[in-house]
Amino acid sequence: MTAARKIIIDTDPGQDDALALLLALASTELDVLGITAVAGNVPLALTEKNARKICELAGKPGTKVFAGAIRPLVRDLVTAEHVHGRTGLDGPELPEPEMPLQDGHAVDFIIDTLMAHGEGEITLCPLGPLTNIALALNREPRIATRIREIVLMGGGFFEGGNVTPTAEFNIYVDPHAADVVLRSGVPVVMMPLDVTHKALTTRARIAAIRALDTKVGAACAELLEFFERFDEEKYGTDGGPLHDPCVIAYLLKPELFTGRSCNVTVETGSELTMGMTVIDWWRVTDRPENALVMRDIDDDGFFTLLTERLARL
Amino acid sequence: MTAARKIIIDTDPGQDDALALLLALASTELDVLGITAVAGNVPLALTEKNARKICELAGKPGTKVFAGAIRPLVRDLVTAEHVHGRTGLDGPELPEPEMPLQDGHAVDFIIDTLMAHGEGEITLCPLGPLTNIALALNREPRIATRIREIVLMGGGFFEGGNVTPTAEFNIYVDPHAADVVLRSGVPVVMMPLDVTHKALTTRARIAAIRALDTKVGAACAELLEFFERFDEEKYGTDGGPLHDPCVIAYLLKPELFTGRSCNVTVETGSELTMGMTVIDWWRVTDRPENALVMRDIDDDGFFTLLTERLARL
Amino acid sequence: MTAARKIIIDTDPGQDDALALLLALASTELDVLGITAVAGNVPLALTEKNARKICELAGKPGTKVFAGAIRPLVRDLVTAEHVHGRTGLDGPELPEPEMPLQDGHAVDFIIDTLMAHGEGEITLCPLGPLTNIALALNREPRIATRIREIVLMGGGFFEGGNVTPTAEFNIYVDPHAADVVLRSGVPVVMMPLDVTHKALTTRARIAAIRALDTKVGAACAELLEFFERFDEEKYGTDGGPLHDPCVIAYLLKPELFTGRSCNVTVETGSELTMGMTVIDWWRVTDRPENALVMRDIDDDGFFTLLTERLARL
Amino acid sequence: MTAARKIIIDTDPGQDDALALLLALASTELDVLGITAVAGNVPLALTEKNARKICELAGKPGTKVFAGAIRPLVRDLVTAEHVHGRTGLDGPELPEPEMPLQDGHAVDFIIDTLMAHGEGEITLCPLGPLTNIALALNREPRIATRIREIVLMGGGFFEGGNVTPTAEFNIYVDPHAADVVLRSGVPVVMMPLDVTHKALTTRARIAAIRALDTKVGAACAELLEFFERFDEEKYGTDGGPLHDPCVIAYLLKPELFTGRSCNVTVETGSELTMGMTVIDWWRVTDRPENALVMRDIDDDGFFTLLTERLARL
Repeated sequence: MTAARKIIIDTDPGQDDALALLLALASTELDVLGITAVAGNVPLALTEKNARKICELAGKPGTKVFAGAIRPLVRDLVTAEHVHGRTGLDGPELPEPEMPLQDGHAVDFIIDTLMAHGEGEITLCPLGPLTNIALALNREPRIATRIREIVLMGGGFFEGGNVTPTAEFNIYVDPHAADVVLRSGVPVVMMPLDVTHKALTTRARIAAIRALDTKVGAACAELLEFFERFDEEKYGTDGGPLHDPCVIAYLLKPELFTGRSCNVTVETGSELTMGMTVIDWWRVTDRPENALVMRDIDDDGFFTLLTERLARL
Repeated sequence: MTAARKIIIDTDPGQDDALALLLALASTELDVLGITAVAGNVPLALTEKNARKICELAGKPGTKVFAGAIRPLVRDLVTAEHVHGRTGLDGPELPEPEMPLQDGHAVDFIIDTLMAHGEGEITLCPLGPLTNIALALNREPRIATRIREIVLMGGGFFEGGNVTPTAEFNIYVDPHAADVVLRSGVPVVMMPLDVTHKALTTRARIAAIRALDTKVGAACAELLEFFERFDEEKYGTDGGPLHDPCVIAYLLKPELFTGRSCNVTVETGSELTMGMTVIDWWRVTDRPENALVMRDIDDDGFFTLLTERLARL
Repeated sequence: MTAARKIIIDTDPGQDDALALLLALASTELDVLGITAVAGNVPLALTEKNARKICELAGKPGTKVFAGAIRPLVRDLVTAEHVHGRTGLDGPELPEPEMPLQDGHAVDFIIDTLMAHGEGEITLCPLGPLTNIALALNREPRIATRIREIVLMGGGFFEGGNVTPTAEFNIYVDPHAADVVLRSGVPVVMMPLDVTHKALTTRARIAAIRALDTKVGAACAELLEFFERFDEEKYGTDGGPLHDPCVIAYLLKPELFTGRSCNVTVETGSELTMGMTVIDWWRVTDRPENALVMRDIDDDGFFTLLTERLARL
Repeated sequence: MTAARKIIIDTDPGQDDALALLLALASTELDVLGITAVAGNVPLALTEKNARKICELAGKPGTKVFAGAIRPLVRDLVTAEHVHGRTGLDGPELPEPEMPLQDGHAVDFIIDTLMAHGEGEITLCPLGPLTNIALALNREPRIATRIREIVLMGGGFFEGGNVTPTAEFNIYVDPHAADVVLRSGVPVVMMPLDVTHKALTTRARIAAIRALDTKVGAACAELLEFFERFDEEKYGTDGGPLHDPCVIAYLLKPELFTGRSCNVTVETGSELTMGMTVIDWWRVTDRPENALVMRDIDDDGFFTLLTERLARL
């Protein structure tokens, strides 16, 4: 038997972050060393609380949750309550968490944990703006060679952006942090909108989750129904894109995804295209490959995996 | 019977420009008042000659051809011999043109012709960098209300770019000119790569053109076979995108195309994304609509139209 | 006896432009082949008329005046009525001009005149935005080697800007044109704010001009008194900077000025510093020298020259 | 008797930083709570050691020295060994320090110290890139109201830059950090090159320091003689600018300096002007005042103060 893969999830829940956390906590192949919260979809005070709510919903109140960056490296914080609701987890009624927030800063936890392990042992899974990851890489550059890889949700290219015509929310909120991460030399796997917009929360898929007939299943169905409203209205689709769980699904079943290794450079110099992830998919520049960019997903396989795992909680 | 629609074609031939010119010259619904050449795919000395070669191939040596801008408004000229060959019309052997280049500058011809006609009488059809059009709009702003519309090939969004990861060649070569045109208030119809990459010169389609068994059919088949090599190798497709004739096809059968009116803003401030056409397809900004951006094409209908018209020459 | 130096003055009068025109028209060392007007301080319809008013004031109604660019290459026109008044020549009562505006466009006049002369025969003297000069260089690149030199008023560095904290008005209005001119390879002599802010229209100096007791002297005194108000109030100085006549004074007595050959690059990529002339005075970059940038002036000598010449009209 | 003013000095020694540290440590009006090192003139491993060397030279080995940011927020580190020598303190022979580096990160020390004091009790004195200060403001935004003011050496305007034509070294190395600090709302006093280039280390002034005939005097004379070489050669002056001690001198005798409250905005969007501090000295924009920018100095008074204080060590 293989040892569980050690991961740290950096997140700004967010309904889709919540599903990603549940998917990870339900999977014995993964050892969630800690969850680090960051400001993003909603302010930090909500994201760290939401992370704890989800741990308790998963029946894992012993999970370590840390609060991290309260704002991006350089720009002012932009949030997305119009998508996620006032709390970030609008939809179900989830009780206030009883489990404590850990002492210490998320960035220090990331650094200390990585430095306490060997090279290539820990995978970072950022689901929100990359502020915490960039701060950790800057504060202790030696972690770069300790990280196994960074599997992140962020960016978009052929699909365009979702917050501006060219920028995806996570990268837009802290483009400078994304720039630091993508120039760090750490192996990056990127789940852009091109993938996640093929993973739609259709009525049938939500119904299958509700049909689990568990507390978790019911809560997830309510989270997804709230979350999909914004994108369903915008795109006229049956269901909205389920972004963040793609990151965890990749760790469990990478064969669900196909992509290409290429250069990704973040626009930080122009307001018009600020936060765009410029992906050299066709390799027309001489910029070096720095990310494995996913473009396609077996969406049925993805939702089957998700539903099956949620059933375990 | 409707009077023929008056157009001026601004072009930098280029094999696909050549097909567009032939399609226009073959169509009695269109009255080609003049052809204005611009530096782009190859330098101006070649594009004006190539335009005349094509007029003679079409059996229309009386067509007026003018030379225009020798370089972009601000940036240095970039050409694309790696796509079009050394002459811009590599493929068939076409004789040196005997018809003369018109006296006078293309920009003056555009202005004088528009000012000699009433409002909404003349359509401009730019197939290359927008330098001539921008110079005309700047030199005589009153033409803005005389132009019926500008139907242009240029830009790209969901498809990305073809010269950099984000920029299409025509816009990249003179992004400032594109910026002037898109801010001019003149109605614009835009055929971006999103359309043209769905209009592939497959073997069957080229065979149908060769099967016309005419001098024009043979020459077109040779032009297309040369032209498609670059993109076939890059994209691994059967055939390459046939960009410029989409502009003329739209004038003849607009129902072949579907799109959306939205804002298009050209990036001129960042080298990374220079010349990108930022298209607010989902209307997430408050920038006003300034172009009808096409996204889909009935490609079979398009090639049927093209082949049928080429047969008339 | 030396033949008079042939010059074309490109201008957007403006009171200081008016003084420059008078200084040139009063000087037999200079042969003013033509005056080309451009939009700048006020719109083109006023600048071309103002140029003619000044020719008539100088008693030179045979001078050729052409209208040129009505707007900058790329950006929208910005004018400066808060400095120059509604007409651009506020101050004295000057009669409507009777001399005609020449037929033809200023840019064509510049090109045709240069191409009709040999290499190094004609000096261009731009006193406003560089739109006409850039358009001419773009339309007929062969003029680059015909121009003897371009002596221009524009830019600023150690003095900062006058329209934004970093940009001088002439360059700010058409930064792209300035960029074209400075990259053209034509020898440039630049009179930035660093020089002109040392040439103050003090009460004593204006009094000396009024004391000429001529129509020209009276008009000049009134022009200068109106013109200096804005800068006197802003800077708290006795007198305002007399910008444009520095260009003509340099042609007559270059020894009045000292400067350095260095690289000047125009900022066109950032709104914050748009139109700044970045001058590598200390040669800390490896960018090549492309301009002789003046920094100091013998201001007493300058006003002595100006007053003596105005006396001749 | 007034209580000593509590300060934290953030620094990247550097010879001029060394003089600033000595000036502070010699002055009983100031209570140096700690010295925080940052990467800048030389890498962090040298700057923290250099800070300790100077404390020992001053006979203050009990001073707390912390190591901070090893690299800027976003950009790669640029250093200035060509100015400061390989060690950053080239010139005298200074022994390796025996006093220890404090445990903990400089940013945490800054935050913890500020949060342990009341509002307006502590002044921050950054003498290098603003990385540590920006990181502290981002990590704990509540310190913004605790800081009395930030008195910093950095920027330049009418004097231009010293590392590029427009950028001063400290701001250029971490323009994003400077942007964060200047938008933080904390009162800022800025000592730009415009001041420091008027504080020249002439032969007479160095001689006066050497004539103190103390270990400190001798070391300072050697530090200054090494340090001034680069700028003397560049500018052809007698002595080089003594930048960083201006910050400490301002705390001791603010009347030595004159300036103006205005807006300062840092260029972070264009490589050409990257790191420029755009100072709206003439208030031509509507951007709000965010810094007291000094422009003039009583340089004789400054060197008299410096020399008199060094004599106390």
